[in-house]
Amino acid sequence: MEQRLSIITLGVRDLSVAKAFYEKLGWRASPASVDGQMAVFQLGGIALMLFGLKHLADDANSKGRLPELGDFGGIAIAHNARSKEQVDAVLEQAVAAGATLLKPAEDVFWGGYSGYFADPDGHPWEVAWNPHWDLDDTGALTLPN
Amino acid sequence: MEQRLSIITLGVRDLSVAKAFYEKLGWRASPASVDGQMAVFQLGGIALMLFGLKHLADDANSKGRLPELGDFGGIAIAHNARSKEQVDAVLEQAVAAGATLLKPAEDVFWGGYSGYFADPDGHPWEVAWNPHWDLDDTGALTLPN
Repeated sequence: MEQRLSIITLGVRDLSVAKAFYEKLGWRASPASVDGQMAVFQLGGIALMLFGLKHLADDANSKGRLPELGDFGGIAIAHNARSKEQVDAVLEQAVAAGATLLKPAEDVFWGGYSGYFADPDGHPWEVAWNPHWDLDDTGALTLPN
Repeated sequence: MEQRLSIITLGVRDLSVAKAFYEKLGWRASPASVDGQMAVFQLGGIALMLFGLKHLADDANSKGRLPELGDFGGIAIAHNARSKEQVDAVLEQAVAAGATLLKPAEDVFWGGYSGYFADPDGHPWEVAWNPHWDLDDTGALTLPN
């Protein structure tokens, strides 16, 4: 299995609400999106997809109950910003677009600065500044190697 | 907010078990990993991190109960392979490494071929072949634009 992933799919309750939220962040959906069915955004070499929560659970052959809004699903997504100021700005922008602030940004033990918002379906996004891990001009992250 | 993400963090119950699973897939952890605390893998321009489930929930200021093994958390990760045969091979490799097969691969309505496994913490991975979305030599995905 090659060391990579292709798509992160977020299960959503209302596709138009979720798509509008990410568009309010300034993101542009791909023309590969299908109205009323799914929306997909190009993020560097991967894609972020929005898809109906129940359809996603069915597709994955999950037999459990569906998570309710506010449940913690065990996965977090991080967006690394280029400065502490940018962390604050992104959190403000997300809240203005309809996100819930889970945690205001603060200095953290590992030397960075980090806060969290939840998107309209409760999916947690960390917004962080990490002085140890490089971002290039395209936003690609390179770990120490 | 730039149109990108940096890190996907999977909350895990036993870090050494989870790390060993991804290593059995042939992946190499970054030296930035910290024994007993977190493991991190470079995946193209992003990183996949493994971190204690309760610590991740606390970090995200989540007040809900923790998901139990087998709960569907509302997010799926996809690994796009380069052929149907490679989809089957990756699913077999994952199961051999300790994954649970959620759905054997099958032809799907959108013209591709797709199955799912769950990692040791129940996080669902789709393994798919999609004839419509290109993968380059590095594995980067490009949506129709």
